[in-house]
Amino acid sequence: MSGMDNSLQSLIWKGDRLDLLDQRLLPEEILYLPLTTPEEVWEAISHLKVRGAPAIGIAAAYGVVLGSRDAATKEAWLAAVTKQAEYLATSRPTAVNLFWALDRMKAAASTIAGNESDLERCKSALETEAVTIQSEDEATNKTIGEHALTLFKDGMGVLTHCNAGGLATAKYGTALAPFYLAQEQGMKLKVFADETRPVLQGARLTAFELQQAGVDVTLICDNMAGHVMSKGMVDAVIVGTDRVAANGDVANKIGTYSVAVLAKAHGIPFYVACPLSTIDLETPTGEQIPIEERVAEEITEGFGKRTAPRDIKVYNPAFDVTPHEYVTAIITEKGIVHAPYEENLRKLFHE
Amino acid sequence: MSGMDNSLQSLIWKGDRLDLLDQRLLPEEILYLPLTTPEEVWEAISHLKVRGAPAIGIAAAYGVVLGSRDAATKEAWLAAVTKQAEYLATSRPTAVNLFWALDRMKAAASTIAGNESDLERCKSALETEAVTIQSEDEATNKTIGEHALTLFKDGMGVLTHCNAGGLATAKYGTALAPFYLAQEQGMKLKVFADETRPVLQGARLTAFELQQAGVDVTLICDNMAGHVMSKGMVDAVIVGTDRVAANGDVANKIGTYSVAVLAKAHGIPFYVACPLSTIDLETPTGEQIPIEERVAEEITEGFGKRTAPRDIKVYNPAFDVTPHEYVTAIITEKGIVHAPYEENLRKLFHE
Repeated sequence: MSGMDNSLQSLIWKGDRLDLLDQRLLPEEILYLPLTTPEEVWEAISHLKVRGAPAIGIAAAYGVVLGSRDAATKEAWLAAVTKQAEYLATSRPTAVNLFWALDRMKAAASTIAGNESDLERCKSALETEAVTIQSEDEATNKTIGEHALTLFKDGMGVLTHCNAGGLATAKYGTALAPFYLAQEQGMKLKVFADETRPVLQGARLTAFELQQAGVDVTLICDNMAGHVMSKGMVDAVIVGTDRVAANGDVANKIGTYSVAVLAKAHGIPFYVACPLSTIDLETPTGEQIPIEERVAEEITEGFGKRTAPRDIKVYNPAFDVTPHEYVTAIITEKGIVHAPYEENLRKLFHE
Repeated sequence: MSGMDNSLQSLIWKGDRLDLLDQRLLPEEILYLPLTTPEEVWEAISHLKVRGAPAIGIAAAYGVVLGSRDAATKEAWLAAVTKQAEYLATSRPTAVNLFWALDRMKAAASTIAGNESDLERCKSALETEAVTIQSEDEATNKTIGEHALTLFKDGMGVLTHCNAGGLATAKYGTALAPFYLAQEQGMKLKVFADETRPVLQGARLTAFELQQAGVDVTLICDNMAGHVMSKGMVDAVIVGTDRVAANGDVANKIGTYSVAVLAKAHGIPFYVACPLSTIDLETPTGEQIPIEERVAEEITEGFGKRTAPRDIKVYNPAFDVTPHEYVTAIITEKGIVHAPYEENLRKLFHE
């Protein structure tokens, strides 16, 4: 296998249900969960069965469809869309794509309701909106990958953290998109995947999907990143993000900040790849991004076996914020953005 | 429980066997392995049942005793000491205490053979040498702890990586010794323990032994170190080491280098605690320290469950080297050493 042709899809819409790949079970087990209610979607997001900023946005959009399809009147339908969007927004706090997708669904429902009198056609148009969010994400990611690839050269070593790949999105991924495109074009990159404790998205997902695609990928523990950099094995870092603040501060999976500091200390560029829907101009700086804290058990018994003493105190933030001064460039579907981010990110939305 | 009074001992010499605490099973299971042959000691060191630079030196010293006690003549005894010391030196490559302890046992045997004609008394004197190595380590560590404690103040947050505690040594540990002494003196320190992938010595051992002693300890994943530093939660870092080169470069558990770079970026002092036996003036710089690479399975199925794809390429260096410019001070039983290390480390041995 090579490239994305045989890749696993994280989300498959079936018209009356969402088949969602349970990412907690990868790579040992490939199981699609048939979700039919917004409660099931909420639970899947909250419990990381689906993760990745774009993917949870898409899942939530389908959750709104599932939660409003039984409405008997247009008013009830509109009310259900609002209610379910508000409910699904509580599933996780950090990734802005979740709120972006839900806002887009609410706005679409409102527009549809204004233009369309038939309830069934309203529902169908809203379903189309969710499908469009998913298909746009795929196209967006491919474009992000093309831009990102211009930053890499044949033979380079590139390190990534967590999973911003096909499994985190509709397809291709954000940070991993250039690796798939490089592979299709015969360009050789040597990828280092941080395993990404505590939930090991790097080991279970990134290593898995890049291996499936034939990309040269080496798995390391998070604490080896500095060592491989010091050995000259890494020429660039690229990661995804859950939210970019207006000043270019970047929230991403815990550990990203450490990688960014290490990259800077070694003179290695640190790139962030994301769609415009991840950039939140309403959040002035990283300080205002809520950082989710998760349960201790992810660290103390994450793998079916207890690996820490009982009753040990644990700190488990799911994300951290990388200040913009560590970010060499942000790669979007509209091109590559450099500092000053305050000014240049804003421009993206007005071009 | 408070302090070290009820602490688990890593190594208990029984006169005819070495009872060795199997550290792979902690904290869930406390099991002492009765070792009666140098082959069993070699295997215990190689497979990390005992780990920590001082502790493996002590274990190896007892291995020499066990491997030479059946000799029928003084010549055969001396030959066995040399042979077993050379054999045990192959169990792990990085920690210099192993070679230091084995050299000391060989030198002791040679001196004993020159002074003593009775074979049984030779054997007994060599056993005493091994016991002395162990008891000296305990005294040394207490002194290291007293020196280290002068660097800390009540209320400080201190981060440590891996396990340089009582379990890594005869007692008290090196980097953890000041935490035990602080606890005994009623000084409050807030310790952050990196879990230390892949073998999780921080989660399984450091968090465990500090918790047992009543020390305020919080377990984090390795990739959270930068985040807790950026939040102002860490005032100092202290770690042990497996070998200090003549120029002050420090080999220690993989991930130490990343922590040192992060500490420097945050203006946080980075301390290394070790006995003189860990300082190797024969090794000019960190470049010459051999770095052990271990099996992929430590990363891919270290938790009793496979957490990475089959046949994934893995890089698993067990140690890294922190260049001396990142080291704020080295704390030994002879006091606290600052740069220039080339000069000041050498002085320690001539005072």
